[in-house]
Amino acid sequence: MSEGGRVENLRIPGPTPLPAEVLKVMGKQMINHRGAEFGRILNEVTANLKQLFQTKGDVLLLTGSGTGGMEAAIVNTLSPGDRVLSVSIGVFGDRFASIARQFGADVVPLNFEWGKAADPDAIRKALKADPGIKAVLVTHNETSTGVTNDLASISSVVKGFDKLLVVDAISSLGAINLPVDEWRIDVTITGSQKGWMAPPGMAMIGVSEEGWRAQAKAKMPRFYWDFTRAKSYLEKAQTPWTPAITTVYAFSVSLQMMLAEGLANIVARHARMAKITREGVKALGLPLFADERYASDTVTAVAASDGLDPKKLVKNLREGHEIVLSGGQQTLDGKIFRIGHLGWVSEKDIKAVLSALKAELPQAGFRSK
Amino acid sequence: MSEGGRVENLRIPGPTPLPAEVLKVMGKQMINHRGAEFGRILNEVTANLKQLFQTKGDVLLLTGSGTGGMEAAIVNTLSPGDRVLSVSIGVFGDRFASIARQFGADVVPLNFEWGKAADPDAIRKALKADPGIKAVLVTHNETSTGVTNDLASISSVVKGFDKLLVVDAISSLGAINLPVDEWRIDVTITGSQKGWMAPPGMAMIGVSEEGWRAQAKAKMPRFYWDFTRAKSYLEKAQTPWTPAITTVYAFSVSLQMMLAEGLANIVARHARMAKITREGVKALGLPLFADERYASDTVTAVAASDGLDPKKLVKNLREGHEIVLSGGQQTLDGKIFRIGHLGWVSEKDIKAVLSALKAELPQAGFRSK
Repeated sequence: MSEGGRVENLRIPGPTPLPAEVLKVMGKQMINHRGAEFGRILNEVTANLKQLFQTKGDVLLLTGSGTGGMEAAIVNTLSPGDRVLSVSIGVFGDRFASIARQFGADVVPLNFEWGKAADPDAIRKALKADPGIKAVLVTHNETSTGVTNDLASISSVVKGFDKLLVVDAISSLGAINLPVDEWRIDVTITGSQKGWMAPPGMAMIGVSEEGWRAQAKAKMPRFYWDFTRAKSYLEKAQTPWTPAITTVYAFSVSLQMMLAEGLANIVARHARMAKITREGVKALGLPLFADERYASDTVTAVAASDGLDPKKLVKNLREGHEIVLSGGQQTLDGKIFRIGHLGWVSEKDIKAVLSALKAELPQAGFRSK
Repeated sequence: MSEGGRVENLRIPGPTPLPAEVLKVMGKQMINHRGAEFGRILNEVTANLKQLFQTKGDVLLLTGSGTGGMEAAIVNTLSPGDRVLSVSIGVFGDRFASIARQFGADVVPLNFEWGKAADPDAIRKALKADPGIKAVLVTHNETSTGVTNDLASISSVVKGFDKLLVVDAISSLGAINLPVDEWRIDVTITGSQKGWMAPPGMAMIGVSEEGWRAQAKAKMPRFYWDFTRAKSYLEKAQTPWTPAITTVYAFSVSLQMMLAEGLANIVARHARMAKITREGVKALGLPLFADERYASDTVTAVAASDGLDPKKLVKNLREGHEIVLSGGQQTLDGKIFRIGHLGWVSEKDIKAVLSALKAELPQAGFRSK
């Protein structure tokens, strides 16, 4: 595919392909990050992000990857020794717990089988059993397994106990419905290279009023990631440290494209792409890895069965079809492959993946029953 | 100016203007950051950086701004309670001390008058007086005052006491001579948007063998910035977290341009541009802010004298000449203005600044004696 400067069909769960209009603005010359022009862009980008976060709270732009955003969320809301419930359904949930532990939190892990969603009742029991828990860490969409948690229900439980709710929405926000204010998320983390049609390099973080109250008391050491500095500079249309200007340029176009499409339409398009992917994969005789009731609308994980070597498949698709998929991570390495369908994705992209899969499955050892 | 996509003469000490060839590659489509193509680019960029760092040690690429790189250097080499000598000659030296303090270091400040360089003898006395000091933090080039420290002499002193030497070279490396191995710098930090002709978004960090030994013992909490993770991923031509791909694309062109020019020629060009700037400014009757023996080759600070309102001057140059200069920071606000001459800069750019200055100085209140 060469459409819009695309040289291959990049179907991994981020980085995602960028529309030609976005690539074009990324070639714009540098400007003073403390000047009026950058200030206007930053203010507009921030206002647009707030719309797409469905929040009236703050949204901060931090230069760093999504994992940096997760670290920022932890160090701005917790103190060493704080007990936190870490709800994990995969690699990125485990990462959230690791970061919290690294900075001295007393992490109570609540892990679910990979491929399944978190059970809100189990979260209720855990919170009931341990009143000392201060905050709950949850992954909205677990990229490693292709599962989306029922965040509305989880939020009801967590807020029923009046706990701080910190959500990794890196691969969901802007693609899967997540009304940040309505669901009372206190800290919401996402990353530029996921649903946002922008290059990697920035984390965007929503902070609620309760999030700010926690931040004022949190004693984990922080400097670069400090939300207070980010907010005080944003009030003068700046960032505390030199920002990734090119990523902000990309946002200045991509967020306008998103608002022109409309959030409801974006969410519906992702749901449609995901359904086409799942139906297509099943029609080829391949089992989905994720519990289909909670299958993600941004990434589909497919189990390797019936002789399929997923690494060989991914290699052959890349070399023979210019289609780039992901394998499995950690214990899922060699056991699944993953198809990303987030951000700039159309039915044509998915159909191309499905027809290439059909052609390559036998070469990769798959013997359909 | 419209040369090479340049819309204005951006003469601040970073971000710096990017050559057309660099801007062009920044519009390249996203690729898989865990794939072979990105791996080849990352390996080539890393090898080129090592040449320009003049080091056989490691150079790590971290997604974040220069301040993120400073935080990374601190948390990877120190433990809470460690005593560190913080040599400061301005805003960025003070920032280094603040970060160290924030993460629990026992900071011994050694501050020099702004506009002057650090005195190696004073550093010797401080180290002699306090054998408990473990590491020394030094700014190579202080952007806020336009002063370059005599790092070779400082290193001789620090290494005479066998202390760890951590250097903020954000606005010097790649523009001012800094032979990292020869001068035995243990941790050397720089930033993509300074001398490197790349957009902001990445910090590049050199680590010596002694730096790694310190890292193995350092107990400050770290996850995102962890050097060990960065090194182990680099061994498989990856980064631990999704990197700022566009900035790496920019490096893939800008570092080749730098090597084609040759490091000695780059250093000589910066010295020449700085000299033309200083001579031109003095010829207009304006005093330099920095001690001229240590005046920086990447940024010139000019003192506001004889009625000059530097804010008005900066505004008039921007609005009337499309020339963007910087004002002063913190206590120097309203007292100096600064001209950046690092990265992609030619004599023509400087001459344009000088002739616009000549035209605008009277309008900004300056009455030459």
